[in-house]
Amino acid sequence: MDKGIWIMKSTYPVLALARTFALGALLTLGLPAQAQTDPLPSWNDGAAKKSIVDFVKDTTTPGSTRFVPPAERIATFDQDGTLWVEHPMYSQVMYILESVPALVKAKPELAKVAQFSTVLEILKGDRAAIAKLTVADLEKLAAATLTGMPVDTFNAGAKKWLAEARDPRWKKPYTELTYLPMQEVLKYLRASSYKTWIVTGGGQDFVRTYAEAVYGIPPEQVIGTAGGTTYGYARDGKPFLTKAPKLLLNDNNAGKPEGIHLMIGRRPVMAVGNSTGDQQMLEYTQAGDGARLSMLVLHDDAKREYAYGPAQGLPDTKVGTFTQALYDEAKKQGWTVISMKNDWKKIFAFE
Amino acid sequence: MDKGIWIMKSTYPVLALARTFALGALLTLGLPAQAQTDPLPSWNDGAAKKSIVDFVKDTTTPGSTRFVPPAERIATFDQDGTLWVEHPMYSQVMYILESVPALVKAKPELAKVAQFSTVLEILKGDRAAIAKLTVADLEKLAAATLTGMPVDTFNAGAKKWLAEARDPRWKKPYTELTYLPMQEVLKYLRASSYKTWIVTGGGQDFVRTYAEAVYGIPPEQVIGTAGGTTYGYARDGKPFLTKAPKLLLNDNNAGKPEGIHLMIGRRPVMAVGNSTGDQQMLEYTQAGDGARLSMLVLHDDAKREYAYGPAQGLPDTKVGTFTQALYDEAKKQGWTVISMKNDWKKIFAFE
Repeated sequence: MDKGIWIMKSTYPVLALARTFALGALLTLGLPAQAQTDPLPSWNDGAAKKSIVDFVKDTTTPGSTRFVPPAERIATFDQDGTLWVEHPMYSQVMYILESVPALVKAKPELAKVAQFSTVLEILKGDRAAIAKLTVADLEKLAAATLTGMPVDTFNAGAKKWLAEARDPRWKKPYTELTYLPMQEVLKYLRASSYKTWIVTGGGQDFVRTYAEAVYGIPPEQVIGTAGGTTYGYARDGKPFLTKAPKLLLNDNNAGKPEGIHLMIGRRPVMAVGNSTGDQQMLEYTQAGDGARLSMLVLHDDAKREYAYGPAQGLPDTKVGTFTQALYDEAKKQGWTVISMKNDWKKIFAFE
Repeated sequence: MDKGIWIMKSTYPVLALARTFALGALLTLGLPAQAQTDPLPSWNDGAAKKSIVDFVKDTTTPGSTRFVPPAERIATFDQDGTLWVEHPMYSQVMYILESVPALVKAKPELAKVAQFSTVLEILKGDRAAIAKLTVADLEKLAAATLTGMPVDTFNAGAKKWLAEARDPRWKKPYTELTYLPMQEVLKYLRASSYKTWIVTGGGQDFVRTYAEAVYGIPPEQVIGTAGGTTYGYARDGKPFLTKAPKLLLNDNNAGKPEGIHLMIGRRPVMAVGNSTGDQQMLEYTQAGDGARLSMLVLHDDAKREYAYGPAQGLPDTKVGTFTQALYDEAKKQGWTVISMKNDWKKIFAFE
């Protein structure tokens, strides 16, 4: 950097130009430029932060025994509960529920169907009625609200909802409830030539509508629960894709490594999750040769966010379940458990 | 560039450093650096070459009405017949056939099954027997040779075969039979911040074993006909994926835009193919707003490569069929038809 600073002092325009490019190149190449500033300012010093910084340094230092070639620098992140808030309910489930009134308006006969009338009750304020919905009910509601329309129509609807919907506690758009420390990790990895991927149990098309704006992750690096589409033509001959009620990938549990193979075709070197649904992704990542980093976010901060899960002796809220067995496995395998309470200085950018 | 040249004349080490980075940055940003040399030296001047150069210049020039932001610069390429030779038979079909003897050796009872005994005849020299195989037969052979084994075992087998197999005409590895002019297009696009993707009817896992070495295209940018995998554990507890005989994506015809939506999640701005199996990908690409480039490679060079297809009044060889209807559609839609005979100065790097 001494040379870089020397260049910055120059007043010749041509050198200013060179300086701009040189600094850009330094950042792109992940050279020492960033060693001088803390890449993770929202993290408290501790084992979790150290494991990330050591991993990135080791895997990007040529000659290191843990060096990973740039092409193989794949890092995968669960979304709900790992990159943003998942309580009291996954935002996409809120999207499904809140899409029901418009659907019932278009097809009034649905108001008499049990699942739909239950949702209308929930939305009228009877939040307890949510317990009435079974997984099969939710699947039926998901099929009705997420499929059957052109892809462009779905994308526009999801974007509109995300712009208007508010989290009940913070009264902010869901897209602002991302964890600042994890945003820092994503940026730090990308500045070190890592490709960052989302591997979510949520709907692939849904998450892709905002991942680029919210996380800097392009749609082609979002893997999620995915359905098929059907190619067809409009009356004017213009082709379009319709979302079909056909499940191609259930991107939870074993579906995560299966989805990673389908969409990436190589094993990640780093993976981060927060629930039993992420265990197989972490196992699969860890089973490769060379440097590996597997991490789990523990929701143990009832004050600043939420505290939940059997691993802490707290109730299983069924949203982001972190079992004792998963905690024991993490300890056994040497996976890093991130304590939101102790490891994160700040949780949200708006704090 | 004047300023860049000025910098190059400097003898100060610090400026040499800056120059190195500056030139790298210029290339990365796709600035005029490359306008000075021909990015497509294996192409003859003509409408096809001009359409590519104009498209790249227009879509990467800020302020141009046809400008495309870097994140949306997605270009998709069919493989067989578009990036490399597909005659007399798709290389993956040769892989399937040539994998049969080892399979029969492991399970001798297969020698009595019609499809397998036919393949053994073909490999003994009776090439005409290939006509006996129906599509259903090939699917059965594909399931037997491409599924049922761990992903790592499959990858190792495919790599071994590709290293040893030789094309019958040129006596070279299939991986050397790529078209030099198309390799130049891939590089030119990437130097202009395009992401290049393969969208092939061939097996996704098969093509991913060599795409990075052969085309500079990483596995995560290869979309192909894809089957599912099944996550499981070895006796030592190590997890692994097994290739399952379950078709997730038939990446031909309408399957190409469907696969593009599944794996990329946004519409390409450029697409290149060579057969009726690519028509829907070109239609889908063309149907977006703003700048678009759709191209078809016409195999009309019997001397240097092959000439085939009904669009030229030649027999339909059933491998890379280019119908008259596709040719008419290309003319109607303004898609560029690339004549291998007239547009390509050289076809192979080894010429």
